[in-house]
Amino acid sequence: MKILLLNGPNLNLLGQREPETYGKATLVDVENTLKVFFQNKDAEIVCFQSNHEGQLIDFLHKHKDAAYAIINPGGLTHTSVSLRDAFSGVGLPFIEVHISNVHAREEFRHHSYLSGISSGVIVGCGTHGYLMAADLIAQRLEL
Amino acid sequence: MKILLLNGPNLNLLGQREPETYGKATLVDVENTLKVFFQNKDAEIVCFQSNHEGQLIDFLHKHKDAAYAIINPGGLTHTSVSLRDAFSGVGLPFIEVHISNVHAREEFRHHSYLSGISSGVIVGCGTHGYLMAADLIAQRLEL
Amino acid sequence: MKILLLNGPNLNLLGQREPETYGKATLVDVENTLKVFFQNKDAEIVCFQSNHEGQLIDFLHKHKDAAYAIINPGGLTHTSVSLRDAFSGVGLPFIEVHISNVHAREEFRHHSYLSGISSGVIVGCGTHGYLMAADLIAQRLEL
Amino acid sequence: MKILLLNGPNLNLLGQREPETYGKATLVDVENTLKVFFQNKDAEIVCFQSNHEGQLIDFLHKHKDAAYAIINPGGLTHTSVSLRDAFSGVGLPFIEVHISNVHAREEFRHHSYLSGISSGVIVGCGTHGYLMAADLIAQRLEL
Amino acid sequence: MKILLLNGPNLNLLGQREPETYGKATLVDVENTLKVFFQNKDAEIVCFQSNHEGQLIDFLHKHKDAAYAIINPGGLTHTSVSLRDAFSGVGLPFIEVHISNVHAREEFRHHSYLSGISSGVIVGCGTHGYLMAADLIAQRLEL
Amino acid sequence: MKILLLNGPNLNLLGQREPETYGKATLVDVENTLKVFFQNKDAEIVCFQSNHEGQLIDFLHKHKDAAYAIINPGGLTHTSVSLRDAFSGVGLPFIEVHISNVHAREEFRHHSYLSGISSGVIVGCGTHGYLMAADLIAQRLEL
Amino acid sequence: MKILLLNGPNLNLLGQREPETYGKATLVDVENTLKVFFQNKDAEIVCFQSNHEGQLIDFLHKHKDAAYAIINPGGLTHTSVSLRDAFSGVGLPFIEVHISNVHAREEFRHHSYLSGISSGVIVGCGTHGYLMAADLIAQRLEL
Amino acid sequence: MKILLLNGPNLNLLGQREPETYGKATLVDVENTLKVFFQNKDAEIVCFQSNHEGQLIDFLHKHKDAAYAIINPGGLTHTSVSLRDAFSGVGLPFIEVHISNVHAREEFRHHSYLSGISSGVIVGCGTHGYLMAADLIAQRLEL
Amino acid sequence: MKILLLNGPNLNLLGQREPETYGKATLVDVENTLKVFFQNKDAEIVCFQSNHEGQLIDFLHKHKDAAYAIINPGGLTHTSVSLRDAFSGVGLPFIEVHISNVHAREEFRHHSYLSGISSGVIVGCGTHGYLMAADLIAQRLEL
Amino acid sequence: MKILLLNGPNLNLLGQREPETYGKATLVDVENTLKVFFQNKDAEIVCFQSNHEGQLIDFLHKHKDAAYAIINPGGLTHTSVSLRDAFSGVGLPFIEVHISNVHAREEFRHHSYLSGISSGVIVGCGTHGYLMAADLIAQRLEL
Amino acid sequence: MKILLLNGPNLNLLGQREPETYGKATLVDVENTLKVFFQNKDAEIVCFQSNHEGQLIDFLHKHKDAAYAIINPGGLTHTSVSLRDAFSGVGLPFIEVHISNVHAREEFRHHSYLSGISSGVIVGCGTHGYLMAADLIAQRLEL
Amino acid sequence: MKILLLNGPNLNLLGQREPETYGKATLVDVENTLKVFFQNKDAEIVCFQSNHEGQLIDFLHKHKDAAYAIINPGGLTHTSVSLRDAFSGVGLPFIEVHISNVHAREEFRHHSYLSGISSGVIVGCGTHGYLMAADLIAQRLEL
Repeated sequence: MKILLLNGPNLNLLGQREPETYGKATLVDVENTLKVFFQNKDAEIVCFQSNHEGQLIDFLHKHKDAAYAIINPGGLTHTSVSLRDAFSGVGLPFIEVHISNVHAREEFRHHSYLSGISSGVIVGCGTHGYLMAADLIAQRLEL
Repeated sequence: MKILLLNGPNLNLLGQREPETYGKATLVDVENTLKVFFQNKDAEIVCFQSNHEGQLIDFLHKHKDAAYAIINPGGLTHTSVSLRDAFSGVGLPFIEVHISNVHAREEFRHHSYLSGISSGVIVGCGTHGYLMAADLIAQRLEL
Repeated sequence: MKILLLNGPNLNLLGQREPETYGKATLVDVENTLKVFFQNKDAEIVCFQSNHEGQLIDFLHKHKDAAYAIINPGGLTHTSVSLRDAFSGVGLPFIEVHISNVHAREEFRHHSYLSGISSGVIVGCGTHGYLMAADLIAQRLEL
Repeated sequence: MKILLLNGPNLNLLGQREPETYGKATLVDVENTLKVFFQNKDAEIVCFQSNHEGQLIDFLHKHKDAAYAIINPGGLTHTSVSLRDAFSGVGLPFIEVHISNVHAREEFRHHSYLSGISSGVIVGCGTHGYLMAADLIAQRLEL
Repeated sequence: MKILLLNGPNLNLLGQREPETYGKATLVDVENTLKVFFQNKDAEIVCFQSNHEGQLIDFLHKHKDAAYAIINPGGLTHTSVSLRDAFSGVGLPFIEVHISNVHAREEFRHHSYLSGISSGVIVGCGTHGYLMAADLIAQRLEL
Repeated sequence: MKILLLNGPNLNLLGQREPETYGKATLVDVENTLKVFFQNKDAEIVCFQSNHEGQLIDFLHKHKDAAYAIINPGGLTHTSVSLRDAFSGVGLPFIEVHISNVHAREEFRHHSYLSGISSGVIVGCGTHGYLMAADLIAQRLEL
Repeated sequence: MKILLLNGPNLNLLGQREPETYGKATLVDVENTLKVFFQNKDAEIVCFQSNHEGQLIDFLHKHKDAAYAIINPGGLTHTSVSLRDAFSGVGLPFIEVHISNVHAREEFRHHSYLSGISSGVIVGCGTHGYLMAADLIAQRLEL
Repeated sequence: MKILLLNGPNLNLLGQREPETYGKATLVDVENTLKVFFQNKDAEIVCFQSNHEGQLIDFLHKHKDAAYAIINPGGLTHTSVSLRDAFSGVGLPFIEVHISNVHAREEFRHHSYLSGISSGVIVGCGTHGYLMAADLIAQRLEL
Repeated sequence: MKILLLNGPNLNLLGQREPETYGKATLVDVENTLKVFFQNKDAEIVCFQSNHEGQLIDFLHKHKDAAYAIINPGGLTHTSVSLRDAFSGVGLPFIEVHISNVHAREEFRHHSYLSGISSGVIVGCGTHGYLMAADLIAQRLEL
Repeated sequence: MKILLLNGPNLNLLGQREPETYGKATLVDVENTLKVFFQNKDAEIVCFQSNHEGQLIDFLHKHKDAAYAIINPGGLTHTSVSLRDAFSGVGLPFIEVHISNVHAREEFRHHSYLSGISSGVIVGCGTHGYLMAADLIAQRLEL
Repeated sequence: MKILLLNGPNLNLLGQREPETYGKATLVDVENTLKVFFQNKDAEIVCFQSNHEGQLIDFLHKHKDAAYAIINPGGLTHTSVSLRDAFSGVGLPFIEVHISNVHAREEFRHHSYLSGISSGVIVGCGTHGYLMAADLIAQRLEL
Repeated sequence: MKILLLNGPNLNLLGQREPETYGKATLVDVENTLKVFFQNKDAEIVCFQSNHEGQLIDFLHKHKDAAYAIINPGGLTHTSVSLRDAFSGVGLPFIEVHISNVHAREEFRHHSYLSGISSGVIVGCGTHGYLMAADLIAQRLEL
């Protein structure tokens, strides 16, 4: 069973800059934690980060046989109809994760194009939010 | 160490009506799951449900010595400044939980008066969201 | 067969103040008229007035076996998502009544959180509107 | 004593199309019911349906000696300032009737140019709403 | 040289109802005053009033050889794109007249679909405004 | 098989005025082109132009046995809920045609009350747009 | 002569939390200061604090014989139409007091449902604002 | 009998710049025309132009014994509440004149703070608009 | 110790016009009352009224050594960013006073550019509001 | 003569997913149909699909010698100013095609950044819309 | 060749207050720097600062023979249509300068009435922005 | 010391198309001018243009050791939160440059996601604006 982890623009910087907002864990740390988590459940997670909206969509199309996805769309959250359409297009259920509390930040961060078709949104729980999403997926897929 | 679980208006109906939206678990099921969860961590959870904004505020004032709270404010999410002020007033960190995906429902459910001052928001993860919140709190309080 | 009559905040003042807006009939007059009306149809009407949003919700939950409700939500019309959710939660069809013509008053009175899920709205027909609602329910329930 | 019944655009289709929204009674049925109702009260109702805003206004001007009107303005509800002005111009009190619950339909159906100057609005009560309006008028005119 | 005077919905009531808003002069009075005015200048004014948007447009099309028009569009001011398009379509310059001060009335009367393409707007000058428009046209056409 | 061609206000002026916006073809040219087109497919097209919203609705009601319609609603596009309701009421699929590019003109021309229930919208393709609509209908009806 | 002092949700916390926003005086301090103030003027002040909108309304109804009221509605300022209606309903003039400068805080605190019908608003003057209100009332009632 | 003519910012440039928008007549021309007009009616007009909001208000206060005013407020039309209040304060009826058609220009020119309390608005009639205003005043004052 | 009293446009009319809105006390009365008040506290108040935004700003700059200011900005309340910037620029704390209840008047009077940086706002308390402001300043400066 | 066919994000999925919305024809089917169409007219069509905004822009720049373009921008329709600027930058006329009726879907799909500068928009005509666009271009280029 | 430097309200305070926002250079420093700059280019700069909108407009009218202007309108940026009209009226090209980054401050500072007709805007570059504007003008006038 | 010059979508067309809006200088001209400028100051500028949001972000991440950046984001100005986040993420100060006056163009060009965190914005100064930005950076870095 294949699970996807997508991280959008600037999340490659995780743990390197603005730790007061995003914490100290790097993206590699996050990905490793989830790899171990799913290995223990006899499932596989495929991880991908890109600063390119198009690459994230290409990745989703390529892995449309996956069972579930976790995505932190970064800044694309608020601006990408195409990413939303990619999820609809491949019919893949997903959990949306935001590390910081977007509702406590600028007004334009309060709206997400993805939330309306997501099957769960986890906001402001730090990088732990990814693990919470993984746990929820494991429960839903009965892993 | 004391944790609070608050449920707002109509959440006493949990598991009895609209199961396609809110699932089959009752509020008692949810509360019991969390009681066990925190007992195992040598912490205590005090549970309270009310259809009265005022009683939820009174409860918060009375338990302001608590370390953390989980709240599903129900319909008050979108209408209660007073509940927000109660959290600010007692200085209690909290996780906001919504069982259904509010972003996929009516426009007026997209705004929450609480999210801006919450320390985490979990949306659309079903009643499992309460346990996710509990797990996050345990991690943050290093239980 | 049980019918409910709910009156929200300030409707206990009916007939005592602002008669040019709300008429001279008191709430007791209104309730008695409807009691007689339904007695004659071999049905029962349970009447309740409260200035507390929470008590109105509690009352609805307690009487969720009722067949139909009439409600004048008063000021809660424009501010209470929880009352709307209570009706959805118990699955009770209801007629919304406003004594005065809310559309001829302040802008904030033009929107009702309840109307979208009501099965009828009667506005500006004075206290006679309650009887019209009763008559409609009788017709619909074939009393 | 003369009462008017006006029906706006598309209401001639009543009972023929979209019965799940508008019911099975035809416009002739509705008009006959009201004719009988007022005959029994020694009053006369003059009925008129038109798909033309201008004809409805002409009709109102011609019958400005009437005591009261019932109107279902159809789509003109949301777009006609001229119809509103016609009622102001002839100084005729009227009850506005909508068969379906406009508040549960598209956003543009939530605003009515007529409600602000009406002396009663009945929404979502089916074709029975016309009779409710007639009954209210009878009571107000002490027929 | 032909001048047009168009009056929209409800202006046939002029002088008969709501004199505190619209004055005591009737539409015939207004039309006669302008007929005399233009006769004295060796020009002709063709007068038309209708409660039908379509008839006003038909009239404009029929008289597209006119040199100038005066129009009080009544309630169509705020709702008719078609009337605006009729003026653009026939390329006829016109003065827009409102008897009452629309800016001191309801918010929806503050916007006019015609003003943006008019060659003059006269508001709140009573029925004298028609004569002012006539005088302006005479000056512009050097009558 | 009967097809309808409806043209709204001011489209009778086609080819006579504002050719830089609407082209040189007259309405008769357009109607003749479509008559020939459908004759060749053993179908009949009934053409109607009116500056009256009410006449367009009456026409639709009278021809509700038609299989498909093409409509250029002119200025009514942006203002007529009644025309929209007429199409819903008779259950007739239709293609909406605009000769000029309404999206490159005034803001108020960007919204259409009809598009939401249309089965195709053709904008800014000149009078050729009517033929494109005819061709689409022929394809859909397998003429 | 009876004066009322109402304090809404969370004002029982006064002096205990967020002193940089609300100052060090407790609610008891405030109430005692006003009791002494009115005693010296041979008037009586009845004080009430509640976190329940309904209790504040009940209190107002019960004391509708009072001559004047001072109210700090807390979070209900921005959300309660019912509290506004209660003041209209009992016809009691009142001064609205806010301890902090609500105009320097979140946008949603800039609108008050009460101000429009108040007879005075005192904002951002700290707890001294209550005494200013008392002083104004004394002057108006010529105590 | 004293009449006032006020011209706001930049109207001293009249006739010198942008003649395609404002015409060739200078402010002196306009003032002289009106002086002659009122002399012939045994009335006096006092003329004043200023680029200073404050001077226009001072002038109004100083001449509050006037019977009527004509004002072209220039850019202050859209920005000055104080000028509006000055007219209310001295209780002076006035006609508002705009030389160009403000409704055909930028959106921010469509709203006037003065129109709501004016007793007439003349827009887009060129400098002839001043004379039209004078003529209206003469008629109203029965000069 | 120097205190400033600034009054904006039209407040020189105080007591002369619109007494039902602004009361009977003249500006001289108000200024004298405050002069006496501060004399008794061994402080000095410098009073200034102007209808010119620029003069009010000049005055503030000239007296930037003052300890506190009271200002009723009149119509500039709703339109002057420059006055706000003047207070920020000289770093002078101030109390904003409005004689009438601006929240019960036109919508454009509900927003103040000054309130957000004021240290107190007193609305609708009549001319007594100035004295209340003086009293608050005395308390804050411990006079 | 070179024509371009551009398809934006997710249109590579055409015919594979959501056939009830987008039909059964694949992108290859569409491209082949258009290739044949233009071959028959001695013109060439160059086809390109990408999920990357940047690649679509690069493609446009590279082929700026083309005579006309057809574009279905997918989700970029509603979010890409850069794509709009690319068309302006290379000065290429284009027809905008949407397979589904975007006006019957979510509100955010009702606005297109491209339509305002397009020379034709075809909406909701299924994949047949591409052929309609091709046909229009052939007519315009007189192929 | 004459260049103008205009500074609006509160810019006389430059260098004296809020140095963290506006820097340490005084207005005299700025003016001297620009005087030297243009002297070296055989041009003259005339400098003017005022807190009065009217004086800035008067100054512009008086110097309408200038070749170019630099203006920092201060708070008038966001509120003065008259200043905009003064520039249009005298037909003078100008560069708009803001010392601080207005886009990082309050929402009401994001809109400028002048920018739309300016020939350059320099924001947030400190007092160096004036010199940048001077340099740009020198380049454009080929000094 | 390393400086970055980023140019967003379509800026590779500079000098080739729409010279009336963007001038005749090509991007190579601009880049060469700035290279020479910084060489003379013993600093290095690294230039990059891309039509891909993702590549611009990648470039920023790769060069996060730079001291300052100049960016003309093209159409991404108005649509890219991710680009804004990239600057925040790498903590790089930057000057935003727009060649044309965006405030004089379409409404959607008036808002920039970057300006709020920029340290300077230069608008409408033509390609000279890049040099002005370079000069400002040189001054700030004391090159």
